[in-house]
Amino acid sequence: MTTLHLPLDRSSGVAIHRQIYDGLRRAILDGVLRPGQRIPSTRTLAAELAVSRLPVLTAYEQLLHECYLEGRAGSGTFVSAALPDDLLQSKTTARPERIGHPPPPVLDEGGLGPFRMSLPALDQFPHAAWSRLVARHAQALPLAQMAYGDPAGVAALRMAIAEHLRAARGVRCEAEQVLIVSGSQAALRLAAAVLLAHGDRVAMEEPGYPGARDALGTGGAEILPVPVDEEGIDVAALQRHGEQVRAVYVTPSHQYPLGMSMTAARRLALLDWAFRHDAWVLEDDYDSEYRYVSRPLGALQGMDAHERVVYIGTFSKVMFPALRIGYLVVPPALWQRFVEARLALDLFSPTLYQLALAEFLREGHFARHLRRMRGVYLKRRDALLAGLERHCGDTLTVHNADAGLHVAVLLAAGIDDIATVQRMRTIGLVATALSTCYAGDDRRSGLLLGFGGSDETRLLAATKRLGEMLRNPA
Amino acid sequence: MTTLHLPLDRSSGVAIHRQIYDGLRRAILDGVLRPGQRIPSTRTLAAELAVSRLPVLTAYEQLLHECYLEGRAGSGTFVSAALPDDLLQSKTTARPERIGHPPPPVLDEGGLGPFRMSLPALDQFPHAAWSRLVARHAQALPLAQMAYGDPAGVAALRMAIAEHLRAARGVRCEAEQVLIVSGSQAALRLAAAVLLAHGDRVAMEEPGYPGARDALGTGGAEILPVPVDEEGIDVAALQRHGEQVRAVYVTPSHQYPLGMSMTAARRLALLDWAFRHDAWVLEDDYDSEYRYVSRPLGALQGMDAHERVVYIGTFSKVMFPALRIGYLVVPPALWQRFVEARLALDLFSPTLYQLALAEFLREGHFARHLRRMRGVYLKRRDALLAGLERHCGDTLTVHNADAGLHVAVLLAAGIDDIATVQRMRTIGLVATALSTCYAGDDRRSGLLLGFGGSDETRLLAATKRLGEMLRNPA
Repeated sequence: MTTLHLPLDRSSGVAIHRQIYDGLRRAILDGVLRPGQRIPSTRTLAAELAVSRLPVLTAYEQLLHECYLEGRAGSGTFVSAALPDDLLQSKTTARPERIGHPPPPVLDEGGLGPFRMSLPALDQFPHAAWSRLVARHAQALPLAQMAYGDPAGVAALRMAIAEHLRAARGVRCEAEQVLIVSGSQAALRLAAAVLLAHGDRVAMEEPGYPGARDALGTGGAEILPVPVDEEGIDVAALQRHGEQVRAVYVTPSHQYPLGMSMTAARRLALLDWAFRHDAWVLEDDYDSEYRYVSRPLGALQGMDAHERVVYIGTFSKVMFPALRIGYLVVPPALWQRFVEARLALDLFSPTLYQLALAEFLREGHFARHLRRMRGVYLKRRDALLAGLERHCGDTLTVHNADAGLHVAVLLAAGIDDIATVQRMRTIGLVATALSTCYAGDDRRSGLLLGFGGSDETRLLAATKRLGEMLRNPA
Repeated sequence: MTTLHLPLDRSSGVAIHRQIYDGLRRAILDGVLRPGQRIPSTRTLAAELAVSRLPVLTAYEQLLHECYLEGRAGSGTFVSAALPDDLLQSKTTARPERIGHPPPPVLDEGGLGPFRMSLPALDQFPHAAWSRLVARHAQALPLAQMAYGDPAGVAALRMAIAEHLRAARGVRCEAEQVLIVSGSQAALRLAAAVLLAHGDRVAMEEPGYPGARDALGTGGAEILPVPVDEEGIDVAALQRHGEQVRAVYVTPSHQYPLGMSMTAARRLALLDWAFRHDAWVLEDDYDSEYRYVSRPLGALQGMDAHERVVYIGTFSKVMFPALRIGYLVVPPALWQRFVEARLALDLFSPTLYQLALAEFLREGHFARHLRRMRGVYLKRRDALLAGLERHCGDTLTVHNADAGLHVAVLLAAGIDDIATVQRMRTIGLVATALSTCYAGDDRRSGLLLGFGGSDETRLLAATKRLGEMLRNPA
């Protein structure tokens, strides 16, 4: 391990984390730090530089995300062994500019920052069991599994998912209805291609998931925002839109972003509306597995006697996002059209991860992992709530924290959440502004704080920083 | 190894390969054949049943494709060790109905049948080197690589692709322009989302690639078929469509399906047309790496001084289809819109295969594999041409066999190619009908015969069967 020469200039106006990032990156590009070389821990470097640990963490995270560094569980942080020569010679990194979508979560600093939405506890994932399965399948991949695959997915995975959904979520389905796609975004895009023509109207919860808005609107459908209240989407308001609504997008188990779950009465009213209007319900069950106040609720799909629900799920939160496996449960009447649209979209999903995941489910690793993560996330949520109460109680109000991997909080009147999120970025906190989830102009100002990806210590420290920031006007 | 009891009924009207398939499947489902158990070679079983080897091969291929069986290189065929219990208890297989797209190649018998389009020589793939890389990355995947990734792809892979394209294809590009997607179908779909609004007009080669028609037309764009001649797309005919054409889809290196390459004069005329009309050229360079009559031609993109070309490539043919990695080279002016559309489509591609592929390129495995495969495919092409001449010379004419992984042949007047392809299926031959590649009514009748996925012996045997079939009217 080297002592690094990283001269910091506190009067330069350049943020400390940025100076550390630039210095480390320069040292790697100039060959001062060699591929595979271990670098100091964040604690050690912070002490050496006489700065707090946070800017060092922020810089390390960005360099990890950009693959200059790699972390090895339990043994520290290293300059990437596999740094390509090109990278070492290039003057600029190959990343595109920051992009304008807040919640489809990408390209933020480090990708693993505190409060990052939709991020599971990657540090708690059973890496050894999983990578053993992947390696085994990679080494014994039959030729037929290297060729063009079934657009619906690998049969063994579809069966394992159907079984899981029947048992754990009360979904009424057979493997024949399960369509494997590359995540819930692709699932929504596919549903839009099948169900919505140019000019059709599709209703969405207001506020709602912006990624769904992007996907459902791409083909030229008109998005109708329909308000949610404490029981879920307002079906009476939906009714008032009349006959022209082809589909409605909902998150009944854990409303995105506000967090409540849809009541049974509201579910029945919604299904009745869909049946009477020949409309489709897109149920996005994105993180229903984690519920802290009562037993997990069954899926809306399981209550539907008329096969009007297209059910969407993802392994991004219960496994890890880079797996890129999600699925739909498609009513039999729509199956053929979904398969054809899937072919036009991208043919089929890579088979290796499908085979490994099927075995992961079948061998019980998945059920064990889910059980264990409920405890992990409960502790993380409680730490976040305790930290918010202790450090931020005077500046924000917790709205709902019953389920999932994020907590929605409301900011005091007059505080702009987008500006707040931008300020948070400068101190390494990666939240999402509640107002970005609204399609209309009547927006509440608040923060969506993910707690899945950070342990209790980090969450407590992050709430402390947040509280300090909120008490000091910009 | 067991001697199988497979009673065949030659008077039943059920094809022999189907009876063998049903018998084996039954034996597996009933537990007569156990998971992991070795089954007789196709040669042995054919001898036992006193049938030719072809129906046995066909049945095995289907069972391999459906994961009832698994092949292990060099050691035979086995009942899948990982057969899920559900499959063993289920009455029906979990496959959806056969679907109606001929060329996006899916769900045909076995997936590996002779003449199958777009199939590379999977038996010649360097499995050991590849699976070692995959296993290594699976075991050492950094946490940041398990989270949400860059929508443009892993930086190391983008750099390796840019370098390969500059050197091998004369593409003018930087890594910053390379966008990783899940294959050329997804690339086309993305290009359509960015470049084509509802009602816009997009020109396509006639005949052309039906998968492109599906992708480009999804958002409501109007497809204009523009005829090809021996020099490529007829730019004068394109001109006559006037100002309203937003984009044109072409396959300059190896026209799909007819096989010629676009002349330099035609390329310049096309680029000039695009520049003058502010239109975009979608260049699909799907199998340009293999050319048998002269050196590979550079990409159209490399001749373009005005950045009007969106270049599309795929690893499906040079690696293997189930990898699901393709890419676009995007003009800088369009980059931001492509990244946003990529997010709305499916966020990003799984990272594991991207990391392994980057290293496969960087370490030189890819270049070696390409070089070796040129020889392999040349032999396979020559075997196919020899077989066609010997066995089918009186019933069809070879149109073009200069490049790529398929040969286009024309059928004699009055012979319906779709009916021919259907008859071929019944004897285990998986060709594509040329007429399905036309959007208009003026169609030539012919066959597209893939030779990448079958060795010389199999190709010769297949042409013999084809000749016999063609000489015997249905």
